[in-house]
Amino acid sequence: MSDLPFARRHIGPDPDGIQRMLGAVGYSSVEELMDAAIPESIRWHGTLDLPPAATEAEAITELKSLASRNQVLTSMIGLGYYGTHTPAVIRRNVLEDPAWYTAYTPYQPEISQGRLEALLNFQTMVSDLTGLDSANASMLDEGTAAAEAMTLTRRSSKARSQVYVVDADTLPQTVAVIQTRAWPLGIEVRVLDLETEALPEEFFGLHLQYPGAGGAIRDHAALIEAAHARGALATVAADLLALTLLRSPGAAGADVAVGTTQRFGVPMGFGGPHAGYLAVRAGLERTLPGRLVGVSRDADGAPAYRLALQTREQHIRREKATSNICTAQVLLAVIAGMYAVYHGPEGLRAIAGRVAGRAATLADGLRAGGVRLAHDAFFDTVTAVVPGEAERVVAAAEAAGVNLRLVDADRVGIACDETTTIGHLRTVWAAFGVDAPAVEEAEPGEGLPGSLPEPLRRTGPLLGYEVFASHRNETAMLRYLRRLADKDYALDRGMIPLGSCTMKLNATTEMEPITWPEFADIHPFAPAHQVAGYRELIDELKRWLAEVTGYDAVSLAPNAGSQGELAGLLAIRGYHQAQGDHDRDVCLIPSSAHGTNAASAVMAGMRVVVVACDADGNVDLTDLDRKITANAERLAAIMVTYPSTHGVYETGIAELCAKVHDAGGQVYVDGANLNALLGYARPGRFGADVSHLNLHKTFCIPHGGGGPGVGPVAVRAHLAGHLPEAIASAPHGSAGILPIPWAYLRMMGPEGLVAATGTAVLAANYVAARLADHYPVLYTGNKGLVAHECILDLRPITKATGVSVDDVAKRLIDYGFHAPTMSFPVAGTLMVEPTESEDVTELDRFVDAMIAIRAEIDKVGRGEWPAGDNPLAGAPHTAASVSADEWAHPYPRSVAAYPTGTAEGKYWAPVRRIDGAYGDRNLVCSCPPPEAFAE
Amino acid sequence: MSDLPFARRHIGPDPDGIQRMLGAVGYSSVEELMDAAIPESIRWHGTLDLPPAATEAEAITELKSLASRNQVLTSMIGLGYYGTHTPAVIRRNVLEDPAWYTAYTPYQPEISQGRLEALLNFQTMVSDLTGLDSANASMLDEGTAAAEAMTLTRRSSKARSQVYVVDADTLPQTVAVIQTRAWPLGIEVRVLDLETEALPEEFFGLHLQYPGAGGAIRDHAALIEAAHARGALATVAADLLALTLLRSPGAAGADVAVGTTQRFGVPMGFGGPHAGYLAVRAGLERTLPGRLVGVSRDADGAPAYRLALQTREQHIRREKATSNICTAQVLLAVIAGMYAVYHGPEGLRAIAGRVAGRAATLADGLRAGGVRLAHDAFFDTVTAVVPGEAERVVAAAEAAGVNLRLVDADRVGIACDETTTIGHLRTVWAAFGVDAPAVEEAEPGEGLPGSLPEPLRRTGPLLGYEVFASHRNETAMLRYLRRLADKDYALDRGMIPLGSCTMKLNATTEMEPITWPEFADIHPFAPAHQVAGYRELIDELKRWLAEVTGYDAVSLAPNAGSQGELAGLLAIRGYHQAQGDHDRDVCLIPSSAHGTNAASAVMAGMRVVVVACDADGNVDLTDLDRKITANAERLAAIMVTYPSTHGVYETGIAELCAKVHDAGGQVYVDGANLNALLGYARPGRFGADVSHLNLHKTFCIPHGGGGPGVGPVAVRAHLAGHLPEAIASAPHGSAGILPIPWAYLRMMGPEGLVAATGTAVLAANYVAARLADHYPVLYTGNKGLVAHECILDLRPITKATGVSVDDVAKRLIDYGFHAPTMSFPVAGTLMVEPTESEDVTELDRFVDAMIAIRAEIDKVGRGEWPAGDNPLAGAPHTAASVSADEWAHPYPRSVAAYPTGTAEGKYWAPVRRIDGAYGDRNLVCSCPPPEAFAE
Repeated sequence: MSDLPFARRHIGPDPDGIQRMLGAVGYSSVEELMDAAIPESIRWHGTLDLPPAATEAEAITELKSLASRNQVLTSMIGLGYYGTHTPAVIRRNVLEDPAWYTAYTPYQPEISQGRLEALLNFQTMVSDLTGLDSANASMLDEGTAAAEAMTLTRRSSKARSQVYVVDADTLPQTVAVIQTRAWPLGIEVRVLDLETEALPEEFFGLHLQYPGAGGAIRDHAALIEAAHARGALATVAADLLALTLLRSPGAAGADVAVGTTQRFGVPMGFGGPHAGYLAVRAGLERTLPGRLVGVSRDADGAPAYRLALQTREQHIRREKATSNICTAQVLLAVIAGMYAVYHGPEGLRAIAGRVAGRAATLADGLRAGGVRLAHDAFFDTVTAVVPGEAERVVAAAEAAGVNLRLVDADRVGIACDETTTIGHLRTVWAAFGVDAPAVEEAEPGEGLPGSLPEPLRRTGPLLGYEVFASHRNETAMLRYLRRLADKDYALDRGMIPLGSCTMKLNATTEMEPITWPEFADIHPFAPAHQVAGYRELIDELKRWLAEVTGYDAVSLAPNAGSQGELAGLLAIRGYHQAQGDHDRDVCLIPSSAHGTNAASAVMAGMRVVVVACDADGNVDLTDLDRKITANAERLAAIMVTYPSTHGVYETGIAELCAKVHDAGGQVYVDGANLNALLGYARPGRFGADVSHLNLHKTFCIPHGGGGPGVGPVAVRAHLAGHLPEAIASAPHGSAGILPIPWAYLRMMGPEGLVAATGTAVLAANYVAARLADHYPVLYTGNKGLVAHECILDLRPITKATGVSVDDVAKRLIDYGFHAPTMSFPVAGTLMVEPTESEDVTELDRFVDAMIAIRAEIDKVGRGEWPAGDNPLAGAPHTAASVSADEWAHPYPRSVAAYPTGTAEGKYWAPVRRIDGAYGDRNLVCSCPPPEAFAE
Repeated sequence: MSDLPFARRHIGPDPDGIQRMLGAVGYSSVEELMDAAIPESIRWHGTLDLPPAATEAEAITELKSLASRNQVLTSMIGLGYYGTHTPAVIRRNVLEDPAWYTAYTPYQPEISQGRLEALLNFQTMVSDLTGLDSANASMLDEGTAAAEAMTLTRRSSKARSQVYVVDADTLPQTVAVIQTRAWPLGIEVRVLDLETEALPEEFFGLHLQYPGAGGAIRDHAALIEAAHARGALATVAADLLALTLLRSPGAAGADVAVGTTQRFGVPMGFGGPHAGYLAVRAGLERTLPGRLVGVSRDADGAPAYRLALQTREQHIRREKATSNICTAQVLLAVIAGMYAVYHGPEGLRAIAGRVAGRAATLADGLRAGGVRLAHDAFFDTVTAVVPGEAERVVAAAEAAGVNLRLVDADRVGIACDETTTIGHLRTVWAAFGVDAPAVEEAEPGEGLPGSLPEPLRRTGPLLGYEVFASHRNETAMLRYLRRLADKDYALDRGMIPLGSCTMKLNATTEMEPITWPEFADIHPFAPAHQVAGYRELIDELKRWLAEVTGYDAVSLAPNAGSQGELAGLLAIRGYHQAQGDHDRDVCLIPSSAHGTNAASAVMAGMRVVVVACDADGNVDLTDLDRKITANAERLAAIMVTYPSTHGVYETGIAELCAKVHDAGGQVYVDGANLNALLGYARPGRFGADVSHLNLHKTFCIPHGGGGPGVGPVAVRAHLAGHLPEAIASAPHGSAGILPIPWAYLRMMGPEGLVAATGTAVLAANYVAARLADHYPVLYTGNKGLVAHECILDLRPITKATGVSVDDVAKRLIDYGFHAPTMSFPVAGTLMVEPTESEDVTELDRFVDAMIAIRAEIDKVGRGEWPAGDNPLAGAPHTAASVSADEWAHPYPRSVAAYPTGTAEGKYWAPVRRIDGAYGDRNLVCSCPPPEAFAE
């Protein structure tokens, strides 16, 4: 007698559908299937100690209660996090729009043109503001970007030194992340006050903050020149809003610029997620970590966007990788880019001018009241020197509703931002005990305040691209967002059966709380007593994640799976060192592993040794023995994914763990495939020492078009003390989206989670069973079963017919699907992960499409259609191509356009197949001039 | 030095664009243009006494402050308004989605298939639950629906009586609306307690409530039979949730059922908007007021939806109209229908069962505690009899956070709903001073409580249509909503240049507050002290609207323009009667008037006398003199629209007002075109006595696909006392959306409003000027200028070429536009209203499309394309039609598909031109069985 519990909304198949699938797979119940699929050696038969499932209404009520225990004060703390007005049209039509947030990373560029264009806007904005030639499509945060800049400069510098110089006026959290990332690589970080201390004779890179963490604007040109003279490269961490008024890092000679775009409309969210950025001067573009959007052309010669230079990515480079970041913060980068589109150059300058004016007014008032300021040249932040009084001032301001930065006992930092009013300044003056000067709430006059040094002001044009001038009224902005969203295929249109990506439902009830002000508008360094709600939510989430994984401790700080991996491996390194095992630096990685594993090991300072897989795709235990023996004293760890990246529950996992442990190694189980285990097996109890999880997979944080991700690291007790302190810029990483996994766990409850796992595994086996006669399933485990995904082996088909996985993937677009994962983990294959959220109607639609495509392949194979001109080779077909006046293909238009025979719900790709190589040869990574599109 | 003020976001053209438009029109400034366009006789040169413009952030802060002064208590008041859980996926993807809320009424069905399907779901749901054959696409609210049922039964009954019997256990607000609507029509309403009082010998209709306002479930079959025996028709106002468990009105013999669908997921919103419903038995379907969606077929024979039986609508019937309701509550009906789709029949029954179970538990506890209940058969509401104690009980419950209904000094009403928990029941028991029985928070067991009388339970199938079984998981629901939205053209895609409809921006900042709980979750009869925020907002809005219109008093109760008209006319009638002028019942209406004007006059019991227009489209003042003379002693009023429905500032308006006043009549100025006056002329000061406004036009409430509307009535002081008390079911009408116009006025400020008016007039003149060489502009005023819209006269073109306005309207779809208003106010013309929100880029896109279409027409005229087979006759073209394997048309596919030469942003109509007559001959107004779509 109840409405459906949330689990029945989250899980796609209804009980009838489950029965139909079970029938096809040949089991009578999900439990029977799971008993057959999962090795008993790791099977857990307990019940998850989680609160029973709440209804959606109950969960929202509890989240409201948690939210109400966060105090939303006005933040003037600064330190890289600022109040900002998210334009409502962008909040509603990007941040709260499933068309944007349920999209996947744009690896299939033909169905991602909307967000690729949005990212190109972002890159253009960063490149223009920083005065550098190329910017990537975002970084995880400022600290990570700074760390990546360090390794980039290490690779690019000709200096032989291992010394990296960081100016002391750098954001403390950035320094901490740099240090975390430096030590495993043997880099020595020297933090120097470059106002008073000299540069060392030898160093390979220099990191400067602009304006400084304390607010001061300094002319860095001479320091940069000095660095260059020593063969070192210079990175400037710069505030993009300040750069609308100030000379750019590029103009000062910097090689690299990094920073955050948070204040461009992205809520603080207690630390994230936000989009960091990284830009480089010409000549360094091919060393950029992360993703880079570029312009290329499609099969009809039309301009089209795609990810450029993908060969740099670690899934291809593996142990040669120089960074483990192939992720980004797409959703947040889209917002930041759109903020610039909405405001345009004049608008951004006006906002920056107002912020600077407020800061100048604030400073004037303090000075008039006799307060000494640490510096006179500043943009938005002043540091007041009040010997012995700092705590009192900060407390007085807090009592009046404003958070200031307690620098130390003698200094208070005060940062202005877009939301600062004269009223806030009055509060600050009062907290300092100075009389408020006579100022009006009105805008300051024209012209910039003297606190912005004349010689360091920006000259020349700003953002002179059409897109930053064309969408300034809300109607135009709304339509631009809609037009871009309409080009893309996301979960709101249909299934995204990407193996290893777990594209499941991102329920609205999970999503709604993240834009509540009580979660969105909190500074990451707000005093702990103001964030009781967040703290309780985080503690509960940690406890629940520890319970479902069987580990003893969880850190939520890593803001991507890659960061979780790195943190876990650093914990292993730290553990070995603490045991005196300083030489244990070999990380065994099976040949089937995700490229990020190897890249993370490299970044953790480990040497990667590959372990072979046997013919069934499982880790070759004999080769494992060999590799263990060969690296006996040096074995640090093994990294395996479970179920394996082959989508199989390997039966040897328990034995594998034992072998490694016996040899003194630690076992890292990549939690990417946790969706196949939850409630059925717990890595922390079947032999693993550490795992990272992907909250954006199993725990429903949306992929956001390629980020945000959250990658907590979970460890057994002996590793807990060795987790790095600073893995990301914010103490709790991307805390602002943690209500999503909290809500998921709270609403699913123990039974719902178990049902989700069982359904996900059933769905994969259903797809495998239905497709078995059409595409061979490459690997299976116990009783011929797969886990939560299956690899379809197209290699024999390709060999026989010439039709490639690429052709099938693109043809699936014509059928209205996002392709499965292509050529990972095995080249020439497709890996399908249906997840528990797709109902049988949609699973059947997919299977039917795959079967129909197989029939098309056979026509090519039989020569009925020529190899070079058939619906597969021509896919995807745009509406323009199928309605062209001329049609010279041997297959009819109707087959091209409507292979399923219906126009209902037809998704049209906006471009045809994209020539990626052309774009890599002719690299264009910012908005093209209008004439490029006029061709 | 500031970011753009809101007016610059709302107004499309930027200063450069304004200059370009002025150049084309031939004026040097907007002021100069307005001086030329607006007759000096009505021109107002004052400054609006409104607060200066707030920024978006400031307005949101103020609204938050207002919201914080509303107390959100748990409502157990009942009386037709209930707590409900809006499914989050529906809230986000319908109520908060511009694709749904910015759509217009589906008069162009080819580009409205999504919401037409959603409305067909709604109709199917209502028809199925009420057990009647046809339901319309929603009513304004339950009271209005009941009033329409009264007039429907009056028209359909063979009884000669003017007596309408209303059972005393009817919602008091429904009785009040019925009475308001009865008196001008000479209908005598008799409210009888039919449990104790006998039916009169003669009456034409009977209104019953089921369950009763007090909660009792009664068997109405005998009363209905008795009514039928007297030739009367019976209407049952029924609760749809109760009908999932109870025998339907249709099964009890009712002819008509009415009610509200609020509790199907639509927030209470302090009274509205919600979708009322009206359903009738077979034989009465052609008498249904309002809109009716039906199934027909398109030019390719495919099934397609459109509004059926449009000939019934008053814009065609005018003074023969029987109702002035051609509007609906589409957005809310979509939500209610989707709520049923999401829950399905089992889900709805489960919710209803839980509600009934809660009520039964509540009753048991009260009885056990010695409290007497007024009845034993009930669904969700019990009435407790506590002589002399009612106030104390209600106060005690309120103190504990629950609002109960104070029926009178001795009785308390308590209504359960979907959100009621055992905790709430405990609060109620405590308020009554009874010990809480031992009940668990857990669900009641299977089976329905005894409080639902066995003989009156529903038997047989419920909602056995596929759509109510197919979208039960959230993923499927999300995709269904997206798929439907993608079929439709709304303001988020492009311009909707509908003359007289003012399709301007509905800014996100205006929209966001309406889903805040402090505005959304308030019962309309919550105690006044709990709604201080709402009261202040309403008072301010009234004051501001009075200021901009120059009137003395404003009522916000009318929940549509039609209701505002009726209220205004009733005030005029009341005023005349109070003056002893009982015979003044003639309403003069120009021949150009909107059909609703005449219909409203008929409903106000007036006789319509038409005044001719002269060759220039202006009211013929000579004919006016004649008509005044001919109706000297009977003249009640004149109704004119200003600027006229011809889109012209008539110069004779001041003289017209004087003539009517001199003859003892009142002047009603329809405020539909207020967007051309705001800040430049005030009807209340240039001679009018009363106006209604359309907040969904000038004041930015979105059209919601055909409702909600809000139609306040503004009057001069002498009429204020004569406004009807009950025009809608809720005291403040659709109060829940009043934050929208409040925010608009607050953020535009006096200067912004003036700028909007000037820009709107400039844009219309720009379009007229640019199109003048291609399409004659039918009417102009001073100096050849139009007001805020212009009529393009296609009649000579049609005569010369055979190409009709319909052809042009449908061809505009191929170009990516919603058509202008067709054949209103002059048959064979198109009326274009660009509004101030469209920027010059979009205006030019429209003008260029119209010019290109003119060239296409000329090709037809020259015989280059045959009359029956050309891009106009074939429009709109679907993607399927232009990519068909066969193409036998004399024009190329590319011309059909991409007449502008670009595929960028292409909107594809999902069906081809719809044959409306076919559907009217074969009337199908509920979901067709699946095979109908399989053809």
